[in-house]
Amino acid sequence: MKPTAKILADIVDEVRPLIGQGKVANYIPALASVDNHKLGIAVYTNQGEVICAGDADEPFSIQSISKVLSLTLALGLYTPQELWLRVGKEPSGQAFNSLIQLEMEQGIPRNPFINAGAIVVADMLQSRLSAPRQRLIEFARKLSGNPSLVYDKVVAASEMLHSDRNAAIAYLMRSFGNFENDVLPVLNNYFHACAVRMSCVDLAKTFSYLANKGRMVHGGKQIITETQSKQLNALLATCGLYDGAGEFAYRVGMPGKSGVGGGIVAIVPGDMTIAVWSPELDSSGNSLAGTQALELLSKRIGRSIF
Amino acid sequence: MKPTAKILADIVDEVRPLIGQGKVANYIPALASVDNHKLGIAVYTNQGEVICAGDADEPFSIQSISKVLSLTLALGLYTPQELWLRVGKEPSGQAFNSLIQLEMEQGIPRNPFINAGAIVVADMLQSRLSAPRQRLIEFARKLSGNPSLVYDKVVAASEMLHSDRNAAIAYLMRSFGNFENDVLPVLNNYFHACAVRMSCVDLAKTFSYLANKGRMVHGGKQIITETQSKQLNALLATCGLYDGAGEFAYRVGMPGKSGVGGGIVAIVPGDMTIAVWSPELDSSGNSLAGTQALELLSKRIGRSIF
Amino acid sequence: MKPTAKILADIVDEVRPLIGQGKVANYIPALASVDNHKLGIAVYTNQGEVICAGDADEPFSIQSISKVLSLTLALGLYTPQELWLRVGKEPSGQAFNSLIQLEMEQGIPRNPFINAGAIVVADMLQSRLSAPRQRLIEFARKLSGNPSLVYDKVVAASEMLHSDRNAAIAYLMRSFGNFENDVLPVLNNYFHACAVRMSCVDLAKTFSYLANKGRMVHGGKQIITETQSKQLNALLATCGLYDGAGEFAYRVGMPGKSGVGGGIVAIVPGDMTIAVWSPELDSSGNSLAGTQALELLSKRIGRSIF
Amino acid sequence: MKPTAKILADIVDEVRPLIGQGKVANYIPALASVDNHKLGIAVYTNQGEVICAGDADEPFSIQSISKVLSLTLALGLYTPQELWLRVGKEPSGQAFNSLIQLEMEQGIPRNPFINAGAIVVADMLQSRLSAPRQRLIEFARKLSGNPSLVYDKVVAASEMLHSDRNAAIAYLMRSFGNFENDVLPVLNNYFHACAVRMSCVDLAKTFSYLANKGRMVHGGKQIITETQSKQLNALLATCGLYDGAGEFAYRVGMPGKSGVGGGIVAIVPGDMTIAVWSPELDSSGNSLAGTQALELLSKRIGRSIF
Repeated sequence: MKPTAKILADIVDEVRPLIGQGKVANYIPALASVDNHKLGIAVYTNQGEVICAGDADEPFSIQSISKVLSLTLALGLYTPQELWLRVGKEPSGQAFNSLIQLEMEQGIPRNPFINAGAIVVADMLQSRLSAPRQRLIEFARKLSGNPSLVYDKVVAASEMLHSDRNAAIAYLMRSFGNFENDVLPVLNNYFHACAVRMSCVDLAKTFSYLANKGRMVHGGKQIITETQSKQLNALLATCGLYDGAGEFAYRVGMPGKSGVGGGIVAIVPGDMTIAVWSPELDSSGNSLAGTQALELLSKRIGRSIF
Repeated sequence: MKPTAKILADIVDEVRPLIGQGKVANYIPALASVDNHKLGIAVYTNQGEVICAGDADEPFSIQSISKVLSLTLALGLYTPQELWLRVGKEPSGQAFNSLIQLEMEQGIPRNPFINAGAIVVADMLQSRLSAPRQRLIEFARKLSGNPSLVYDKVVAASEMLHSDRNAAIAYLMRSFGNFENDVLPVLNNYFHACAVRMSCVDLAKTFSYLANKGRMVHGGKQIITETQSKQLNALLATCGLYDGAGEFAYRVGMPGKSGVGGGIVAIVPGDMTIAVWSPELDSSGNSLAGTQALELLSKRIGRSIF
Repeated sequence: MKPTAKILADIVDEVRPLIGQGKVANYIPALASVDNHKLGIAVYTNQGEVICAGDADEPFSIQSISKVLSLTLALGLYTPQELWLRVGKEPSGQAFNSLIQLEMEQGIPRNPFINAGAIVVADMLQSRLSAPRQRLIEFARKLSGNPSLVYDKVVAASEMLHSDRNAAIAYLMRSFGNFENDVLPVLNNYFHACAVRMSCVDLAKTFSYLANKGRMVHGGKQIITETQSKQLNALLATCGLYDGAGEFAYRVGMPGKSGVGGGIVAIVPGDMTIAVWSPELDSSGNSLAGTQALELLSKRIGRSIF
Repeated sequence: MKPTAKILADIVDEVRPLIGQGKVANYIPALASVDNHKLGIAVYTNQGEVICAGDADEPFSIQSISKVLSLTLALGLYTPQELWLRVGKEPSGQAFNSLIQLEMEQGIPRNPFINAGAIVVADMLQSRLSAPRQRLIEFARKLSGNPSLVYDKVVAASEMLHSDRNAAIAYLMRSFGNFENDVLPVLNNYFHACAVRMSCVDLAKTFSYLANKGRMVHGGKQIITETQSKQLNALLATCGLYDGAGEFAYRVGMPGKSGVGGGIVAIVPGDMTIAVWSPELDSSGNSLAGTQALELLSKRIGRSIF
């Protein structure tokens, strides 16, 4: 079945009662103050159709979803050999910001979607781009087709004020020789990437290349190769939802990436890109109502990849 | 493109040079003595066609691939609530026989495909079946359509002689209240399940229900529900290849399950079931040439789920 | 200052109000049912004088204090090379029954006073003694001068019924080749050793050889060499109080060994042996009031080794 | 027996053949370039007598031995409640620079003698002293009676260039709220403390207060209370030799503190202070020949505390 505005609206209604059962991310004030009743969903088909419901046009902090953008940029700057020497491709089985495994595995992060891995990717962008921060936001604007995308400077600054854990991660990797630049500028870029504000519609458009063999649906530009697109989806399926990737695959059956801002992007390869937003998180740090909305949608339109 | 005998034969030729670069499992003599030059592949389509190449008809020890059989049996005996209370659905990020995470997570194994999880499932079968060992082999015979399947008693006995690590795992779970029966009989059943001998063709037929919405291709019997089939494939995709699930998804792009006997089963949902066999393993314990064969096949016939 | 009955009686009065602030060990019923108001202290000087207060003559379950007895026996059966190949001499920094470090360190327990280490010692006794259980109780009778010492069969049987964690430890060591005999008989001996019942007076006399250069005060028999006596005291000082050895050294300043029955033995080398008993434990598993009594005694008679 | 120049000279001769069996610390060039044949020993008795042999007057980098100085300073600035809230008193059971336990235990270091603990102490000094670096060197000059002690600026600068691991530790503690100041200045002070150059004679004099109930032998000034002196010796005995404290207690039987520069200070409470120096280290990071020299001395003069 094709997704329709009616199906999405129904799903929004059905999952709304979950609001109140999760917890908004509160480690920085700028995230803690978000309205927990926000709830949106957008589908962007490979035919270029946008279908949405709820607060699908309202921008929010994409947070870790930006890790997919950064990795995509890095894929254009490094050979696979170079890239996968510095970061792995396996699920971590641990909290997203843990240093334990990182120490045991000699400073090589498990995958690019835990903090350590994304910070290595940020370090790699810093080494090869003259203005990585500018480059990333322009990339997001191009992919989303939304030229007004900006960094939320308040969020980025607030993250920097609470950056100790991520600084510890970066310095630990540096002690193992897996970090090339000064720590603080790289973290600043990393936090800016997390602080991009996008709506569900923006997100669904942005990641349409992952549903479309590496090619943007609008404009048709090839962003990465078809093979890279499959590989990235594979990484999302095994590592994209922190320590809840198994549960997400079990319930939703799509590659996806979540952020602590409450957004989740999910991919139906060859078919469509979906973005949901609901700020309250479950115990794994993934949007509670958002996951449920994706599970319902997956069942209703029959789009599990499994 | 459809898989053909020619494609499979070509792939067998192409991966054969990898033999010599891996290591045959040698923790028990019965496995160590296998001929490392064996190499087979079989495809079983949802239309009931068998295509194969190499040593596809020669039986070998399926080892951990049996964990999928046991879990499938357990799905028929327990509610999801009962089952998933005792074992998780997340990748472990650790070696398949580690006790570290098991102790930290209070005796609840991360997923049913690491040793601890499969031993819990064996314990659950023991609690609800009067003759679990007999039941399992009959189940394998029915699914494969091969009435001559038997346990390799020498392998099972040899495993029992080297069972200390798994006994430690079982006793640790018992100390946390997550084990109901006597340890040794459960381990004995567990090792027997690992010691079933099947060929690539047997395996591809056996797991055809996972490619066919829960229904056996031959005979048409519904083994599990369509939803359960998707869920099982999701678990295989995130947890089916020990600590190499991410790499396997990245390279092959299919849900799969490997065993230290050198077999791997891979599922193309809605389409076909594939089994490969090559006894030499990579550093994660997965068949080296087998993985490469699946990667080539996935690319050649364009069947990645991503 | 010399210890006197008055000093001991005062200390007993002073620490009694702590009763109620700790927790009696409750993992087996036989221990949980002990009267938590019991409180005793005994000093046995190297001149052969016994001074005591409170319930110093009432026997209780010595539990882990038996680990010193077993190690002393093993010192007579094995060369240091043989012994210290199978168990280390370092504090563990972890809970007494953890398997994490044991797996990381390839089945070699950190020291003979955590469970894993004591179980290895029990395995070593089993390998070289025809009747280790009989031998141990006779050894305890000889050292204490109390021929009526017996195993508490109810406690030993109860421990066997709750032995899963220790069985996991033993099997894990066996999987690493650091265990020679069948697991259950060794555990049975281990639990019997823990189930010896002794009074504070018995304990103080039993371990007088550690305060007296390896020689029993009464009878004068050399049990171990003077060097071994120093070595054993060193091990007690760094590893004798589970994960509370640092705090005990800081507060009491004597080598010591505690048991979850609430007993603690402390050694003043060259001077005296002290035993206290109060069943309630602190968060590290050491007697709460007992530790406080030893701290007061150490200060009052000025006998810290530091 | 009293220590004599002859005894010390004999010991130096006896342990010299060990040179070549250890490894000089090489993580910074300034340490790696030290002459590995240096070997010295000095005894400072509570009667004020200095006895020495070998290169006892040659200054070297005291490295972690400075952690005792810093802690002693902190004892004068903070109440025990304040101090021991931020750092523990237990052996770590792990490498001196590991972050694993630090993360598991919520940013509270196990003891003040592993890196994390010493960095917390440096942070505490920074919070309460206007010029902590100046204060520390003056303290060392006063204690040693050597007004010419200085920081080795080359070593300190070199440590700062290799400070990533310690920066990771500091930031991790900051993320748990257990770090008050900017990380880099505190690390800079910490590395300066490590870079003090002292000879064996300087060191033996400096720490004479630990052998003399808290009072300097020369000058007679009370540095810490007698109780604090006992407590500090207790901490040294259980935590002073990285992950080799048990072995050191077993072999030498004295509280001690080692540094990767190859120095070790050992205390005989009530009697004397000993310092040895030999740059090659064993696998735990303690001076190989130095430990052996202390073991021989302990046996020859009969001064084990056990």
